[in-house]
Amino acid sequence: MQKAKQISIQIIRQAGAISKRRFDQFVDIKSKDEHGDVVTEVDHLIEDIIIKEIQGAFPDHQIHSEEAGIIGTANDWLWLIDPLDGTNNFAIGLPIFTTSITLMYKREPVLGVVYEPLTDRLFVSALGEGAYCNDQKMEIRSNSNLFKGNVGWIQGHVVQKDEGALRLRQHIDVSFKRMMRLWAPTLQWCMLAKGDIDGIVLYNSEGDDLYSGILMVKEAGGIVIDFDGNPFTGMKDEPYLIACHPDHKQALLKVVKEGLG
Amino acid sequence: MQKAKQISIQIIRQAGAISKRRFDQFVDIKSKDEHGDVVTEVDHLIEDIIIKEIQGAFPDHQIHSEEAGIIGTANDWLWLIDPLDGTNNFAIGLPIFTTSITLMYKREPVLGVVYEPLTDRLFVSALGEGAYCNDQKMEIRSNSNLFKGNVGWIQGHVVQKDEGALRLRQHIDVSFKRMMRLWAPTLQWCMLAKGDIDGIVLYNSEGDDLYSGILMVKEAGGIVIDFDGNPFTGMKDEPYLIACHPDHKQALLKVVKEGLG
Repeated sequence: MQKAKQISIQIIRQAGAISKRRFDQFVDIKSKDEHGDVVTEVDHLIEDIIIKEIQGAFPDHQIHSEEAGIIGTANDWLWLIDPLDGTNNFAIGLPIFTTSITLMYKREPVLGVVYEPLTDRLFVSALGEGAYCNDQKMEIRSNSNLFKGNVGWIQGHVVQKDEGALRLRQHIDVSFKRMMRLWAPTLQWCMLAKGDIDGIVLYNSEGDDLYSGILMVKEAGGIVIDFDGNPFTGMKDEPYLIACHPDHKQALLKVVKEGLG
Repeated sequence: MQKAKQISIQIIRQAGAISKRRFDQFVDIKSKDEHGDVVTEVDHLIEDIIIKEIQGAFPDHQIHSEEAGIIGTANDWLWLIDPLDGTNNFAIGLPIFTTSITLMYKREPVLGVVYEPLTDRLFVSALGEGAYCNDQKMEIRSNSNLFKGNVGWIQGHVVQKDEGALRLRQHIDVSFKRMMRLWAPTLQWCMLAKGDIDGIVLYNSEGDDLYSGILMVKEAGGIVIDFDGNPFTGMKDEPYLIACHPDHKQALLKVVKEGLG
């Protein structure tokens, strides 16, 4: 685990140096029309570096990466790579994006490393070892005034016009001081672990960006449950999740139930 | 105007150095509970610097600042100061905040200066002189595929449960690829001027953060209109606005009309 952690930290910093350097470099009209291509180029550049290093260090492990897909044969050890979480933000010059690397063992996250290059924040969690932001231990917060707090919303690409999602999102929006939607899910998970926001509601959003955050929150003392209140474990294709401090479990379940009602 | 511009740029960079240094420094639990105070402290620190410099250079001008209120007697020249736009973001360690300085003459913005310290982006617009991001001329974008674009939403503090606002916001959300809500309005206005997003719909949100952005967008070739399609001029207590490239005027008016209907 130490080797996996060291390598992940080293390559994620390399990745961040690339995205930081390439951020908001599309100022003239011509290259603006090519936003998509430029972003894909950065995605690929970062992905190539990460995959190469992981393959070199752990040739037997399987890798799943956002652009490259599945690499290698099935194995208890699986790496999930999101080279640029918040691609659209990156493309439009909004400084909210990260790189995320997760190591799964038997379909459970055991290592999560997220790097936010523009603020130079490195988030690291390992199973049973806690979660850290730049070497400071993170602890999820119990907010004595939850409804004056900030709750993150994450939804999958497929649900934009899903009536249930719309109702629930609207209900969350009016129930808390602020419903935050960043289009960079890994950062929201890290903010929850760090005690900066008070909860996350995730509506059918699966991907390579999910499991580093789940580990981060659990290792910071949080819970991750489904909409029925059962603990979330393993990997699911269509997850519906609530994450928060244990103190807020019933309150968030109630809000979600009302919103879906 | 040159003197006002030079002084604004100089003090806004000083302000940004303070907010950048103080960003995300609330890591232990104790100071987290004091978020509010820490933020107010930064707000005040920045505000004091800006007010002092403007008063020194333009002793006759009136100043309106978010924390300090109105300073000086009524005058054709009025400075609007938002020392920290995106205070809540700043408080929770989300790197989306700016400082904004606007000079009004006879209730029309003639100079707008916005600085985003974490990305070191300085946005400057002066009446008749264009709008610039770090000395590069900004131009609003005409998007050939508007509904696959990004539209910013800004709402006032008073409207959280306003049924009209909820309906309209929901309609915008499902009409475009992405409805962006940053809780840092000045940055959204600058992103629109810069061609990074495709429109803004503002629902009853007035404040010291509004007029620098309006000038930025107009000087970048955009239009700012009310919900009936009339050009927005002057200052209003309860503005309802659409801002976009002239090509998108009818499309955005239609979406807003549908959403309110």
